[in-house]
Formats: sequence, structure tokens, C-alpha cells
Amino acid sequence: MSHNTFGHLFRVTTWGESHGPALGCVVDGCPPGIRFKLSDIQRDLDRRRPGQSRFVTQRREPDEVKILSGVVMDADGETLITTGTPVSMMIENVDQRSKDYGDIARQYRPGHADYAYDQKYGIRDYRGGGRSSARETAARVAAGALARLVVPGVSVRGALVAMGEKEIDRANWNWNFVEDAENPFFTPDPASVPLFSDYLDRIRKAGSSVGAVIEIVAEGVPVGLGAPLYAKLDQDIASNLMSINAVKGVEIGEGFAAARLTGEQNADEMRMGNDGKPVFLSNHAGGILGGISTGQPIVARFAVKPTSSILTPRKSIDTSGHDVDVMTKGRHDPCVGIRAVPIGEAMVACAIADHYLRHRGQVGSRAVEQ
Amino acid sequence: MSHNTFGHLFRVTTWGESHGPALGCVVDGCPPGIRFKLSDIQRDLDRRRPGQSRFVTQRREPDEVKILSGVVMDADGETLITTGTPVSMMIENVDQRSKDYGDIARQYRPGHADYAYDQKYGIRDYRGGGRSSARETAARVAAGALARLVVPGVSVRGALVAMGEKEIDRANWNWNFVEDAENPFFTPDPASVPLFSDYLDRIRKAGSSVGAVIEIVAEGVPVGLGAPLYAKLDQDIASNLMSINAVKGVEIGEGFAAARLTGEQNADEMRMGNDGKPVFLSNHAGGILGGISTGQPIVARFAVKPTSSILTPRKSIDTSGHDVDVMTKGRHDPCVGIRAVPIGEAMVACAIADHYLRHRGQVGSRAVEQ
Amino acid sequence: MSHNTFGHLFRVTTWGESHGPALGCVVDGCPPGIRFKLSDIQRDLDRRRPGQSRFVTQRREPDEVKILSGVVMDADGETLITTGTPVSMMIENVDQRSKDYGDIARQYRPGHADYAYDQKYGIRDYRGGGRSSARETAARVAAGALARLVVPGVSVRGALVAMGEKEIDRANWNWNFVEDAENPFFTPDPASVPLFSDYLDRIRKAGSSVGAVIEIVAEGVPVGLGAPLYAKLDQDIASNLMSINAVKGVEIGEGFAAARLTGEQNADEMRMGNDGKPVFLSNHAGGILGGISTGQPIVARFAVKPTSSILTPRKSIDTSGHDVDVMTKGRHDPCVGIRAVPIGEAMVACAIADHYLRHRGQVGSRAVEQ
Amino acid sequence: MSHNTFGHLFRVTTWGESHGPALGCVVDGCPPGIRFKLSDIQRDLDRRRPGQSRFVTQRREPDEVKILSGVVMDADGETLITTGTPVSMMIENVDQRSKDYGDIARQYRPGHADYAYDQKYGIRDYRGGGRSSARETAARVAAGALARLVVPGVSVRGALVAMGEKEIDRANWNWNFVEDAENPFFTPDPASVPLFSDYLDRIRKAGSSVGAVIEIVAEGVPVGLGAPLYAKLDQDIASNLMSINAVKGVEIGEGFAAARLTGEQNADEMRMGNDGKPVFLSNHAGGILGGISTGQPIVARFAVKPTSSILTPRKSIDTSGHDVDVMTKGRHDPCVGIRAVPIGEAMVACAIADHYLRHRGQVGSRAVEQ
Repeated sequence: MSHNTFGHLFRVTTWGESHGPALGCVVDGCPPGIRFKLSDIQRDLDRRRPGQSRFVTQRREPDEVKILSGVVMDADGETLITTGTPVSMMIENVDQRSKDYGDIARQYRPGHADYAYDQKYGIRDYRGGGRSSARETAARVAAGALARLVVPGVSVRGALVAMGEKEIDRANWNWNFVEDAENPFFTPDPASVPLFSDYLDRIRKAGSSVGAVIEIVAEGVPVGLGAPLYAKLDQDIASNLMSINAVKGVEIGEGFAAARLTGEQNADEMRMGNDGKPVFLSNHAGGILGGISTGQPIVARFAVKPTSSILTPRKSIDTSGHDVDVMTKGRHDPCVGIRAVPIGEAMVACAIADHYLRHRGQVGSRAVEQ
Repeated sequence: MSHNTFGHLFRVTTWGESHGPALGCVVDGCPPGIRFKLSDIQRDLDRRRPGQSRFVTQRREPDEVKILSGVVMDADGETLITTGTPVSMMIENVDQRSKDYGDIARQYRPGHADYAYDQKYGIRDYRGGGRSSARETAARVAAGALARLVVPGVSVRGALVAMGEKEIDRANWNWNFVEDAENPFFTPDPASVPLFSDYLDRIRKAGSSVGAVIEIVAEGVPVGLGAPLYAKLDQDIASNLMSINAVKGVEIGEGFAAARLTGEQNADEMRMGNDGKPVFLSNHAGGILGGISTGQPIVARFAVKPTSSILTPRKSIDTSGHDVDVMTKGRHDPCVGIRAVPIGEAMVACAIADHYLRHRGQVGSRAVEQ
Repeated sequence: MSHNTFGHLFRVTTWGESHGPALGCVVDGCPPGIRFKLSDIQRDLDRRRPGQSRFVTQRREPDEVKILSGVVMDADGETLITTGTPVSMMIENVDQRSKDYGDIARQYRPGHADYAYDQKYGIRDYRGGGRSSARETAARVAAGALARLVVPGVSVRGALVAMGEKEIDRANWNWNFVEDAENPFFTPDPASVPLFSDYLDRIRKAGSSVGAVIEIVAEGVPVGLGAPLYAKLDQDIASNLMSINAVKGVEIGEGFAAARLTGEQNADEMRMGNDGKPVFLSNHAGGILGGISTGQPIVARFAVKPTSSILTPRKSIDTSGHDVDVMTKGRHDPCVGIRAVPIGEAMVACAIADHYLRHRGQVGSRAVEQ
Repeated sequence: MSHNTFGHLFRVTTWGESHGPALGCVVDGCPPGIRFKLSDIQRDLDRRRPGQSRFVTQRREPDEVKILSGVVMDADGETLITTGTPVSMMIENVDQRSKDYGDIARQYRPGHADYAYDQKYGIRDYRGGGRSSARETAARVAAGALARLVVPGVSVRGALVAMGEKEIDRANWNWNFVEDAENPFFTPDPASVPLFSDYLDRIRKAGSSVGAVIEIVAEGVPVGLGAPLYAKLDQDIASNLMSINAVKGVEIGEGFAAARLTGEQNADEMRMGNDGKPVFLSNHAGGILGGISTGQPIVARFAVKPTSSILTPRKSIDTSGHDVDVMTKGRHDPCVGIRAVPIGEAMVACAIADHYLRHRGQVGSRAVEQ
């Protein structure tokens, strides 16, 4: 990654702040001939959109995506076809609620990037967090929706597996429930909804916040994507996930738990299946061995810290070097990790699309089409 | 990162396999005028070198580094000075013990990259793990030794904080002990040595292996390195660490523990210090906020899985598609994570050097020299 | 360069086609704190804008630039200040004259990219040349206008020095005249205007077209930008200029004429000046020696081919593989090279800005501020 | 390009100076399974090697290439097979004739990079030109020899078409003669040999030097390589050629002559051939339209300036800021352009190999295998 561009062949450049006129991304290197509808992109954006339950920020944004380049309309007047040139997507900012930013302009909010920004750049767009706003992730989700279409047969799904001190029961895992209209948390465990609801209501009413752990699973990824070192598929997934705001940790497969296992426990044994294809007997590796996909599901997790936008005053300093106590007013997310689920999916989808094209470039059609 | 090159301005390209004539790296973009001695590089290589205790592989390699370009010798006949052109460093392979690789050539070792390699490339250098050999990390360490010299006043140190199910007692942390000659584990806790020794002897005699967790701490990093998104300092540290073989997870600061904290707990409060400089009252963030260094120590951890080279037979298949049982013979590392300490330091040092130059490029001298 | 992004630290990504809703660019890596007005960008766009004389295409486009991100407004309500985050600029397409593209959709215009596009992508946006449209260069000019502000004291100017078989008289060179309202050609030679007018009127009325040669001169470039090899300043200037549509050749300094000189003639001799600074006695090198700027004016030239959009029918084939005769109807540019002047300036300015930041990154403030 | 690495998927990193122990390159991203012999690489190096006639420098270097990684030996003990990992190639410097560099260390040679180096880096390896030495091109030639093997059926050949004021007669063009043992000039025109010999003997005896123009022709390049803008095939060829020392101009197809043509003259007409395939009736475009290869031969030319290492004293300054007269002693090349022929071939071959893989990555197997 360099600057605000990521990916090597499937390259995404994002731009935009919370309180400018718009934000967006340019997806460059997309294969030509991919057919999709605008609603395929919009659907993912709607999943990320704020204001859909009392547990997420009440900012009202339609998050309507416009595609400005890189596609032609098919004769049906509805299907878009990529041409192989850069796909520019834009999302306008609508709800820039008028607000007195005086304090935030002058005070460094603890746990935010305010102080580091000012020290780095000597200038800072403090409105709504500027470039660090969670709104920026809409551009990622739009790019990811396109990335999903690059590799035939791939599915990338995510779920929230822990919220603060509460965890799901993996025995209840139900992918269908994740997208259920009654599920405000992207949890795969129906039994966790009341648990999380009570817990988060308490947090929310206290003006506090908690973190979360998200798990992303990619199925149907062809064997052979990635590289032994430096362009490892797991490395690029980790890099993509760590580029999301508030993420403090990333794991593949067993992750940190692998450090506590023995070699016997951790090795994924293999046997030939009845259909003459190799079968793995476990997936501790999370679908990646030596940096290269094995054909098993790819499993990644990331930890999102609690937002520091809380109602309890915290000690800090201001731009003039005076001690102050800072309290964040206005709408806030008690658990920003909830909306990170579609974002994590998008970032993993982008990594997979990029490595699919890279693999096809270096090795040719043999491997990816076998 | 792309292919076997990482870094944007301080760029490292590595090459080489375990059983070829040599391995090495090219460090491009190094600032001119850096003065050092060959022993500054060799010292770090010696720390990584195998065969130094019964707990690491007994392969005997002098790991003697040669610098082939990019420097001139000062009049003292000893001090090297970088010229700003690519620094090529080479380490010859000496102990390529003659060995019958017949089984490894035909069998896929569970938990290794063998199967994924063959599926990706259709060809594989199976001798000693080929490109995935732990020997490759010598090139990283050489590059990292140079990276340490780029940022004035930075120190990057690492320590093993967990081995399998055993952990250190952080109350005993002693940086000096990490490099103690009596300490075969890079542990910062003197009390952990007998504990780890007994534990790892048991593992070793059973022909088994365990994982480990390594912590890297960088002090003296100027405030302002990194970027809000996509070129976040923590992201590039995570990417660098995940590019090391056998790493399955990376954390910054509180890492996954942050997901269990509230916003009140996790926010690092600030006050003006007596010297008129800002002081952080805690460091949950691990020295990075919004992707940008804050001036606090940078803290990263990574999890190393247990090697799959174990004496217990495991189920697998061979290249002809037959079921086989695979057992790894010969020298092996019961805990490959031990030697990962200097490697992790090197990778963090490279990320910091790169971002130091990038920051100076974009923002100029003001920020980094303040 | 890779895909539609160019530059290493000052990075420009462009997107858009002739007949989509808009086109634009994202400028990433711009230093923070640069102060400018929207009119600074608009001025350059106006110089490139079509429809300003009978010698250029009559498409009417206001080419009004909007800045969507990466800046904050100063208290004066007029001055914009870069924040160091991506600057997204957009220009809407207005005059998409309704047109029957039937023939162009089915026929490959000789000398155009039509055939190569279809063979490459299997799909082509044929409206107005698609991605290859000259309109794309508006995005370059917008980026270049920002690039001009990065290096203090640099001026980048261009002029048309040859049109078809006609050349200017260098003895008459007058930079002020280039921007004169009576000068439709960006020629620096007032005497050439009637010559070029008569010539181009004949070409235009014949439905024909001619090529041109453009010269770009950058003054005030600090000594030390570039690198000995592979990131040579002249190489990146050449690459940037060759990325413009219809450019078939690039020269630095003496260029091809240098091949006919002797070493005695070509070497730029030096002497110490009266002010204690080195003085070059000539500038055959065009301001760059060994890939690195010398402090002399940088001089580059590029050749623009005649457009193949002409009224005379030419032999070709159609998408069904039948022989056809192709004639281009509608508005066209008899000499597309005229409007290439501000585009060439922009591309050279971007190369200089990028190398200024790269040099500052690698070497620090010493050299660039001396 | 960035730093000393070029190419996007077929990536070459070079390192080394004239008077260090060795120089070399790392070729990363090479497809696996390419079979070749060491002699395939050595043959190209031998063509570039100095000391083969009285018209080139008399430095005696065996230029023996060693391959240190990225290949396995086939059972025949002779055939090497790429594994897909980085191929590191090294050439040791042998003839580092002991020499008093005192003057060169203190004096800036006019027309050389000496002054610019010192201003940029504050330090300079003045021995033999350091990084700017023509010896560096051996690494390019080694990489190019591998690049030739990437695209099936491609041939890349070069020839010297002008030397100083003398040009070849294109009516005599004979590719076979270029490699003839009696031809010390890589000229394709047998009649030019006595002409060039007499001319260059005069130049040589006068201690002078002249420039040259080289033409590279690539045949068998598949249609569809490149991109409409910014990753144009001609742009990357131009960038690669301009990265060679002493190159001051690059042209594709008609090049600068295209500026003097009309649209009628310049357009390459097409017809369907008897075999049902499109046929171009001319090749003014040099095989590239809109940045994309058309399937016609690709034609590029570059101008090499005369070396400034001449026996006639020239005015200059020294590092202390005093006026001096500089005269280059010792062995020198009266026409460095002669040996640029295999270098130019290598750089064009690298560009084509890279774009072949990039095209296959983005578009897949359809286009490149059609």
C-alpha cells in the first residue's frame, strides 16, 4: 500500500472527508466485461449505512453511490459492464448537521488522532473527524462490492463474534441470521441478540462505548493465490484490515491461539477425498499455508477498539498547550465494531480480487482455471 | 508491498532459498551519508543465527554478511558510508547438509506450504523449504540493521512474552536480560528461563513443537509518522510482521484486548508535562493514534505458530494423489518463535525507517526535526 | 507508473471518459499547508479548454473544476489550504452532443486505438474516444496546477515550436507572447502566427490534420532532483509526456541532435560565477546530468502526431471483419498539438513535484533548501 | 518506476557500481516453469561485453553471470527451471585497474553527473563513474535475457542506425549482418562498416567521441499489451530506454517525423488479409496505437549522446569551488552508443514481458492466447 491506494492489479484509491461535498473511490485495473447492476453496489452500502438501529450513529445519510466512469450500459438500460478503465464511484455527503466545532478544533480528544494529525501536518480538518471519519469506509464498501464480482464463485461473509466482554456461542452459528432484519448486530448467533441488546443499551445510556471482534470468512477462493513471502495472501488481508480505523489486531485461522498449540494440534492433516480431490481434515491455518491459499475457507478476525467519543470527560490538552477536560457531545456509536462487518468483508474481497489477478498474471490460466 | 519488495522510500528486496548458493537483499533508497561498521550488521545476524543453544535448529551457518554495493569505505578502513545507491547484501549458504529429499519431494507435509506451492507454481524447490525457509529471514535482519540507522535516536527491541502455554511475568520485565548470554529465549523475565527450559525440553524430546508470542517495542520514534488511512504506521508494521513465515496474528497496543475495553478505559489521557511538553498518562494505543505515531513507545505483538516439522506422523497425501503418513526427520526447531525476536525487530525497524523518509518527503523538515 | 496512477510521493490517479458524467483526478501525497485559490487551478484549465479559436475543436465545455476533498477553506472564504489528505478534483462533462455513433461503434478508425482496444478488452466505450479522449487531459492539467505549487520558485512554461512542416524562428522567442490573446497557437514567435494561421487554415479546410512539436522549460528547479538510474528525472519526464495521447517522441536538452555532436561540443563547461556559485556555459544537457537536475533550466520536447480524425476516407475493417472505408465526421482538431502545451507543462510539473518530495524524503532538508 | 526497481509484475531491481566487488539484479515475478540454460543469459552478456574491438573500451571483464536463486536444475544437469521466486543474478567485477582517481575525486567532469551527484547526495563514489558506470548495464542485459523467454514467440532485435553525422542506408538492412563477426558496430548495413570505421577511427585518434541512434524492433508481440493511458506500452518502453545512461531522446514508430506528417499520411490503413486476419498496410505507429500493441512489429529508437570522457581539456570547477581544466585520461569509448544495442533490446524485452503478464492478469487468458 502506498498513500491512499491499495492493491497491485486491482487497485483502489479512496478520497474524501466527513464534511466535504462527497467521498469516493477509483477502482483501477478491474477486468473488462464484468456485468452488474448499480443495486449490487448499493446493497452493500446499505448494509454499512448508519441510522438503521438505536445502536448505531443517528447521522442520516442515504449513501447513494454514483458511478462516474469505467462502465457502459448494456442494451437493457440496467446492466453495467466494466470496460477495463478506471471505475470512479462517488457518494455525496448529505447530513452535514450544522454544529459548533469550536471545542474540537481547539481540544485534542483522547484516543483520537487529533493530536497526531496536528503534529504531523500542522493543519487538520476537524469537522467530523476529517479523513479519519467512519464515513470514509463507504468508499471501501463500494470498491469491495466490485471486488466480489472479480473472482467467479467466491463468497465473502462476515459476522460480529464478540462485543465488549460478551461473545457469541459458535455452536449457534447461522449465516442466514447475520442478515436477518431482526438482527441489528451482524451476529451469527440468534441467542446473542438479547444479550448484546441489553449490554449495549447499558453502554449507550451510560454514554460509554465498547469494542468488538469481527470474523470474515471467504469461501470458494481458488487454491494458489498469494506468494510465499512479502505478497502473502494473509499479509495483504491483514494489511487491508489494519487500514480500517480503530482496528488494533488481526488474526488468520487460529491466530494468537496458534501460539498455544503444539505442532501436532495445529497441522491440518490431508486425505484424498472420494471425488479424487484432496481433503483437509481441519482448518487451523485459516485457508492459507505459506502465504498461499489452499482452497479451504479463508478465515480472518480483527479487533475494533471502543470509540473514544464518550460522554465521560477525559483529561487532555488543547492546541495552546493547556490542560482541559474533553467530553464528546452529539450522536455517537456505542459500538463502532458493528458496522465494521461489511467493511471487513469489502477489504478481504479486495485482497482476494487483487491476488486472483496477480496470480493469473504470473502463472497464467492453468492454475486459476483448474 | 509487491512481490518480494517492501517499503516505499526505504525499499527492501529479498531473494534466495535455503539450499541455493546464497541469499540476500537489496536496500534501495537508503539516505546517503549514514556511517556504520560491518559489525553493526553482523551483530544482528549473529543474534538470529541458528545453532546457538539446544533449543534451536542445529544447522551450522556462519551467516557472514557481505556488502556488495552502495557504500564507500572511509579513510579509517573500517567505517562504511552509504552513498544513496542500492545497498546489496549477501549471505552465503554453507551448511547445505547432503540429505535425501525423496520423501519431501513427493509428499506434502501437513501445515507446510508444499501443497499450496505445487498448486500455485506447478514446480517447487523442496530442498530445505525453498523460498519459505527460515534462512530467508537473515536477509530481513540485515536490512533491518541498516534501517535502525536511518532514524536518529530510535531503539527497536523485542522479547519473547509467551511460549506455548507458558507466559512471562511482566512484573519481572528487564530489557537488559533479553540479551543476556544465559538467556536462550530472548525472554525479558529471568524467572521464566527455567520454566521455559523445562517446558521446551519436554517438547523437544517428544519431537513436538510449540508456538510463541513476540513483543516489539520501538522507542524514540518521532511524532507524526504514518498516515490517517491506508499508509497507517500500524498497518505497515502489521503487514511487515505478517510477512514473516509462521506468523498468524498481529496486535498493536492493547490489540485484541481492546475489544473488551470501554471507551473510558481505552482512551489515553493527556496532560501538559512540567517541561511544557504533552504527556500521555497511559499507552493503550501502543504509540499510534489514527495511523500516526504519537511519540509514545510503539508496541506490537505477533503470534508464531508451532512448526509442523515434528516427529509424530501426520496424515497427508503425496504428489501422485495417494494417502501417506508424513514424519519430519532431521534437525528441527521446537519453537521457531524464539529466533523470531530479531526478525520482528528488523521488520518494525524497516517500517519506521520507511515512514520517517515518507513523512520527511511529504511534510518536510519541520515536523521530524521539531 | 502503474495503471492510471503516476508519481511516487506526489501521486495522481485519473479517471473518466469523454461521454460519462464527469472526469477527474485524485492527487495524493500533496504536502499540507499549500495555500491557493480555485482560480489558480481554473486558469490552467481555461488555457487547455477547447472552442477558443477556429483552430481547435468546437466542443463547448466550461471545464469547471470542483474540489471535493483534501482542503479546508481559510477564514477569508476564498483561500484553500491543503490538509495532506487526497485532493479529489472533478470536471463535469456538459457538451455531450447527441450523435450517431453507429459507424464508429462498428468500424475501426485507422490510426486510432479502436482495433487495439477491442482486441485487448473485448469491449470498448466508443463514444468520443472513450478513455482515450483528449478530454482526459483536463484531469492532468488540474493535477499539474496543484503540482506547480509544491516547489517554491519553480516556473514551468511551454510553447509550440513546430507545426507540421513549419517551425518557429527561435531568434524571436518571447515567453510573454505565448499567452497573448492574439496568439491562438502558444507559439513564442510572433512572426509565426500568420505563417501558422495560413498553413492550418489550409489543413483545416482540406479536412486534414498535422502534428506539432512542443517544448517545455522548467526554471528554478533545485539542483539534486532525480536519481542516477531508473528514477532519473529525465526518465520520469519522458514517461509523463509519453503518457499523453498522440505523443510519439520525447527529447531532453539536445535530444536526438546530441547523437550528431562530438563530446567536445556536447559537454556543458562550468566556471565559478562572480557570486561564488557555479555557472554552466551552455545547456546541451537540458538541465539534467546523470538523471539529476543541475539547477539549469530543464528543457524537454515532445512530438504530437496528426490526429487520424480526417475527412478523407481511409481503408479499414469493421468489427465483423469486412473491408470498409472510414471517414470521420463532425468537429475535429486540425492540430491537436496546440492544446498539448498546457498538458505538457502539467506533466512536467508533476514529475518535478514528485521528485522534489522524493529527494526531500531520501536526503532531507539540507539539499533542497540550500 | 521507483528507485532502482522497474516493472510492475515482471520486476527488475538492479544494484552495483563499477568498482565494487560485483553488480547484479533481482528479477521478481518471473513466471514459474521457464526452462533455459545459463548460456542463454551469458550470450547476451557477451554481446554487450567491452574489449571486443578497437572501437570500444579496452577494460577486460569476463562478465560471467551467476544465478543465485529462483531456479532449480533439471535432471539433465544443465537446464534451469524458474520456480516463480526471485531470480538473483550476479556479475563480479574483475578488471578494477588500479588507478589514481585523485583528479576525478576533486574535479567535476563537464557533461558527467559528478556535480549533480555531489549536490544531491553530499557524497559520491567517483571510482569508474560509480553507479552511473556503463558496467551497470550488464545487469539490465541479464534481466532482459530472462525477459525474452517470458512471451512465447517474441523476438527483440536492435541495430545502430546512425553514428555521429553518419547514417546507414536502410535499403541495405540485413538483420543477419547485425550479429556478423566482421561487424563491430551492430549496424544492419554492410556498406556502412567501412564508413563507420574510418569515421570512428578519426574520432578515436582525436581523443573525441560521438553519439549514436539505436533502433529496436520487437516482432511477435501479441495484440493487446499496454493500456490506453499512463501504462501505455510505448510509455513504458520510452521510460525503460530513457533510464539508460546517456540517452537523450526516444521515439516510437515515426517519432518526431510524425509531427511533420498529415493525418492522411500517418494513418496506418487496414484490410482483411487472405487468411481472414487483419492486415495493416503501413506501420507509421510503430506497432502501438492508443498505448496498446496492434500485433505489428514494435519499433523504437533512442539517441545516445557522445561521452564527455574526451582527451581535449574542458573548463570546469572542482569541489573546492575553483576553476579547473579537466581532461579524461585512460581507456574510453569513442562511441558508447555501439554497446547500447543489446542494452536497448533488454530494456524493450523487459517492458514487453511486464505488459504481457499485466495484460494476462487483468484480462485473462482469452486475449493473449487468441
